[in-house]
Amino acid sequence: MLHFENDYNEGCHPKLLEALVKSNEENLSGYGTDSYTQSAIEKIREACQLDEAEVVFLTGGTQTNQVAIASLLQSYEGVIAAETGHIALHEAGAIEYTGHKVLTIPHQDGKLSAQAVADYLETFYADGNHSHMVYPGMVYISHPTEYGTLYNQQELEDLSRICHDYQIPLFLDGARLGYGLAAKETDLDLPTIARLCSAFYIGGTKMGALAGEALVFTKKNMPKHFMTIVKQHGALLAKGRLYGIQFDQFFTDNLYMEIGQKALALAEELKAILKEKGYRFYLESPTNQQFIIVENSQLDSLSQKIAYSFWEKYDDKHTVIRLATSWSTTDDDIKALRNIL
Amino acid sequence: MLHFENDYNEGCHPKLLEALVKSNEENLSGYGTDSYTQSAIEKIREACQLDEAEVVFLTGGTQTNQVAIASLLQSYEGVIAAETGHIALHEAGAIEYTGHKVLTIPHQDGKLSAQAVADYLETFYADGNHSHMVYPGMVYISHPTEYGTLYNQQELEDLSRICHDYQIPLFLDGARLGYGLAAKETDLDLPTIARLCSAFYIGGTKMGALAGEALVFTKKNMPKHFMTIVKQHGALLAKGRLYGIQFDQFFTDNLYMEIGQKALALAEELKAILKEKGYRFYLESPTNQQFIIVENSQLDSLSQKIAYSFWEKYDDKHTVIRLATSWSTTDDDIKALRNIL
Amino acid sequence: MLHFENDYNEGCHPKLLEALVKSNEENLSGYGTDSYTQSAIEKIREACQLDEAEVVFLTGGTQTNQVAIASLLQSYEGVIAAETGHIALHEAGAIEYTGHKVLTIPHQDGKLSAQAVADYLETFYADGNHSHMVYPGMVYISHPTEYGTLYNQQELEDLSRICHDYQIPLFLDGARLGYGLAAKETDLDLPTIARLCSAFYIGGTKMGALAGEALVFTKKNMPKHFMTIVKQHGALLAKGRLYGIQFDQFFTDNLYMEIGQKALALAEELKAILKEKGYRFYLESPTNQQFIIVENSQLDSLSQKIAYSFWEKYDDKHTVIRLATSWSTTDDDIKALRNIL
Amino acid sequence: MLHFENDYNEGCHPKLLEALVKSNEENLSGYGTDSYTQSAIEKIREACQLDEAEVVFLTGGTQTNQVAIASLLQSYEGVIAAETGHIALHEAGAIEYTGHKVLTIPHQDGKLSAQAVADYLETFYADGNHSHMVYPGMVYISHPTEYGTLYNQQELEDLSRICHDYQIPLFLDGARLGYGLAAKETDLDLPTIARLCSAFYIGGTKMGALAGEALVFTKKNMPKHFMTIVKQHGALLAKGRLYGIQFDQFFTDNLYMEIGQKALALAEELKAILKEKGYRFYLESPTNQQFIIVENSQLDSLSQKIAYSFWEKYDDKHTVIRLATSWSTTDDDIKALRNIL
Repeated sequence: MLHFENDYNEGCHPKLLEALVKSNEENLSGYGTDSYTQSAIEKIREACQLDEAEVVFLTGGTQTNQVAIASLLQSYEGVIAAETGHIALHEAGAIEYTGHKVLTIPHQDGKLSAQAVADYLETFYADGNHSHMVYPGMVYISHPTEYGTLYNQQELEDLSRICHDYQIPLFLDGARLGYGLAAKETDLDLPTIARLCSAFYIGGTKMGALAGEALVFTKKNMPKHFMTIVKQHGALLAKGRLYGIQFDQFFTDNLYMEIGQKALALAEELKAILKEKGYRFYLESPTNQQFIIVENSQLDSLSQKIAYSFWEKYDDKHTVIRLATSWSTTDDDIKALRNIL
Repeated sequence: MLHFENDYNEGCHPKLLEALVKSNEENLSGYGTDSYTQSAIEKIREACQLDEAEVVFLTGGTQTNQVAIASLLQSYEGVIAAETGHIALHEAGAIEYTGHKVLTIPHQDGKLSAQAVADYLETFYADGNHSHMVYPGMVYISHPTEYGTLYNQQELEDLSRICHDYQIPLFLDGARLGYGLAAKETDLDLPTIARLCSAFYIGGTKMGALAGEALVFTKKNMPKHFMTIVKQHGALLAKGRLYGIQFDQFFTDNLYMEIGQKALALAEELKAILKEKGYRFYLESPTNQQFIIVENSQLDSLSQKIAYSFWEKYDDKHTVIRLATSWSTTDDDIKALRNIL
Repeated sequence: MLHFENDYNEGCHPKLLEALVKSNEENLSGYGTDSYTQSAIEKIREACQLDEAEVVFLTGGTQTNQVAIASLLQSYEGVIAAETGHIALHEAGAIEYTGHKVLTIPHQDGKLSAQAVADYLETFYADGNHSHMVYPGMVYISHPTEYGTLYNQQELEDLSRICHDYQIPLFLDGARLGYGLAAKETDLDLPTIARLCSAFYIGGTKMGALAGEALVFTKKNMPKHFMTIVKQHGALLAKGRLYGIQFDQFFTDNLYMEIGQKALALAEELKAILKEKGYRFYLESPTNQQFIIVENSQLDSLSQKIAYSFWEKYDDKHTVIRLATSWSTTDDDIKALRNIL
Repeated sequence: MLHFENDYNEGCHPKLLEALVKSNEENLSGYGTDSYTQSAIEKIREACQLDEAEVVFLTGGTQTNQVAIASLLQSYEGVIAAETGHIALHEAGAIEYTGHKVLTIPHQDGKLSAQAVADYLETFYADGNHSHMVYPGMVYISHPTEYGTLYNQQELEDLSRICHDYQIPLFLDGARLGYGLAAKETDLDLPTIARLCSAFYIGGTKMGALAGEALVFTKKNMPKHFMTIVKQHGALLAKGRLYGIQFDQFFTDNLYMEIGQKALALAEELKAILKEKGYRFYLESPTNQQFIIVENSQLDSLSQKIAYSFWEKYDDKHTVIRLATSWSTTDDDIKALRNIL
């Protein structure tokens, strides 16, 4: 079976594993106070070109979104997101669980436009009666989006400006950030993200960590007593080293970028093969996730050869499926795919 | 100034006031355990033709929606509502505050169709990945809706059947229920609502009470220790008599229905006058709220003569405004309106 | 039956009722924006000798505590209270429902000493590991306490100073404030409370209102968008006039103080009668609630003559019961009591 | 520096690490649906002698307590715990964050007696007014306790019987369960815990896992849609394999027990050394954590040689400190300690 169903079905990148093995017997203080975590934080600051960045490591994407959003919002505020946003659809109501509404607005292939955000905010404040409504207190975007699409620098500048005008933070979910940073289709790099977003996270799990996401506050805006807030959410890891060691590796010798670049190179080959074989694309994705429309009658035979993800119903006769490359995809996987399809 | 801006700007109906005055010095036990509350409950049971109805009085509509919905949902469930539903838009996120998502679906003039609900539920369960999503655990409708529109018996039967098929409660927000029950355009009466809904509330505030809504559980489904839940929400009134006495009057000698009928008769006259004067209706409302589209340039002069509610922007040059009759509107108000417009 | 079981079993004070009747047909804007509410706020400011006081009317004591405490605390903070505090014991976990812990400390007859608060705070900050603990973010006291006892000015000064030292608000629950202000045993008056507390509420329900409590923020510290927060809690009354009209009366011609004074004068008589008849007091209460220890074997016959409240078990053979005078107790009630006992 | 400050300052047990390395490149499905997780579950069932046990792996102790307790309680219920219980003191209010009160009762060296629980429950239900109070809906104990003490089988039988009488679950926090199971001082084994508790967790982090706790529901009482609840809490790990692989090792060839036994053997030596050197014990602990009372003036010189944990202030001149052995303590560590002290 060839595996293209997602980017989290293997363990961790060999370099991360090696570092974990090597440091295993070291005595390191708990709860993220260890030296590897400190080193990782400094390397991330450097990669972001932002000395004042505050970095906290959490376990997974939903947890990171939940803790970050709940702690940045006021009690009477909600978070603006695309109707297709991960927090809006696929996190089991984790944001609402913290008491906050997800305010959904229209999107294009998973992306929010500055115009759509501006329209929402203008309409909200134009309504004399908005004291009975949830205040828009943040904008959430993902990069890459749930559909693998990307913002460019101008688009992020525009979103950031609107957020600045309304004095609300812009938060970027980077669960697959490395696959976005490596894409040639966008000029958006990490320092720019750090400059334009109020907070964001650098995804680890889907980039080759066993677990772990790096939440970055960019404006000296980490909520007060944040460690206590993390603990209160049940999100404080005793052996914080687990994330510190892995992220220290990710940001040594450009590994995080290299992982992204390799996966995207293989994704290009994947796309070429799919096009060659006549598959129809659901949308143009410049990242590691590719979405194709398949006749329902072909799904069974396809699933004999390749592991893919069901994405959504397209129409009564067709289904959108996802194929993804990842940090663990090999050249051999792609070759085998070419032969099989 | 003529007042048509809403249905809650006067105190309470004379008969309710009289009963409050008359009983004022009686010593009555607290927290809804008094004899008037018991009498009101029995009269509501009778009006609903449902001996087993469980009735609890709460203060306002948002509070009633919040307590009822939060206590009927499981922790992993959300409530399906129209995009225009009061809980979705105008209750400041009171449902999300309790940890639950409002799952919005399309509507027609504020109404949910059984088909739209069925589509949502089918799609949800068809998605193999729904364990990462909020489970739809209830359907919320309002009657009259936020746009003054009404369900008929068949429509409610259909909604009820879908809810029954999926084993989720159907909840009806009756903030203005009396104005719906009195409408000739629908065959939906109180016993039918009590038969088809799992829970609903009979609005008091907008029908002429100082405050107070009667929440009715129809299937012996009042959550266990409900009084404690109400207290936990800060919603338990010490002097429960305040609601008991008023609702006892509402359901004496058919007063609740009469109030509705009179307001609707006046609303018919209001509509006739507005049509006569050439006003353009935003939609056809058979209840006490009428929505008209007015040129922005006319708003100022109109507001010199009549108090109305801004409803929403129609387009750059027009605005939707609301005029409402109520339990306190008089024949003289209507006559004066005819002269003024 | 003679009624001394509590202070909320009759309707409302005649002057409040008269004002409600008189204003009933006036058209007044909703949600606390009416002229009576504005007038009540101004009179409360005057009574507090604090022009900048911000006043919001809510429905009952638990709701007021819940909304005030939740909106003044940070997410990682809890509220210090006596083990016997109303929020700690008898509000069904309404504070915890909002996500905050009640941090209980020892008390004397329901009162917190500045020393006990200081000890708690010192110990908390001395513990190097307190980032895993709930931060003490407020001090809650009640005046009169749940046992009818009172603070004097010096005690409140001391509590206020500790709170100031630690930069946390001091909140006073005044459900029965009028019975405290009227007591000769304390020199604590309303302007001093307004000066020393960050927020407090002036109880209406137990002082003769149908419902309604006046929440006062004294340091320009009303949380931003407080009306939205109130709405989010389901606590915003459409007909805000109900509380505005009543509190406007309470603070006209010194009525609020007079009600307290009369009830306390009757409480003095009640105490004298009880002492005369040989009843044993559980503690010395200078306010309208009196607590006596009665043999269990006598409870039945007593309850034939007088309605009282069970308070708590004293030992296997004795019970503490409460007798209370109130705004509605009459001289005749006291005379009858003397004859009956 | 010799490390006795806690049991979570090294990475993971070599056998767990080896298994992680070995399986690293295997493609395994996510979210706990992999074969290692399934194998671990089966081995835990076997160790518990309970075929119907339902097992879910979560990340850390606070998270496990939070998710388990919140999902087993009704909305109006709180959890009974010792005043020293981890959930009561050192989890930053994580239980209250989910809306539930921790109802603290007295303890002996961290343990709850059946009598104390029975007294609380009896008093609660004897109070006629308990509908305004938080219902006790669960009993939480830890084993070993926060003070290293242990329950015996009879004590757990007694607690279990009380819980059964009141129909509330008994939940056991086993963060350090392995150090309790290995103790000679108690006859309480894993199958008995599984038989007597409604739910409990088998601690991984402090027993030598990188992260991971095994939550066990013993009465077919895992809450419905539990995976969604876990996701909603931000607690669902994408690479569930991380815990599955480690726990599979823990329960292979009796490793979990062996780890406990070795640490306890070393703890016995530690105790002997401390006694020999004249240290004064704060209490008698039969497990891996030892608490001694040290003069404040000696703390500095002690900390030059050994890493220990500050526990609490004993009096103005003395401090309680904790020394702990663990899965990673070696015979050499103990020898070195003997030489140093």
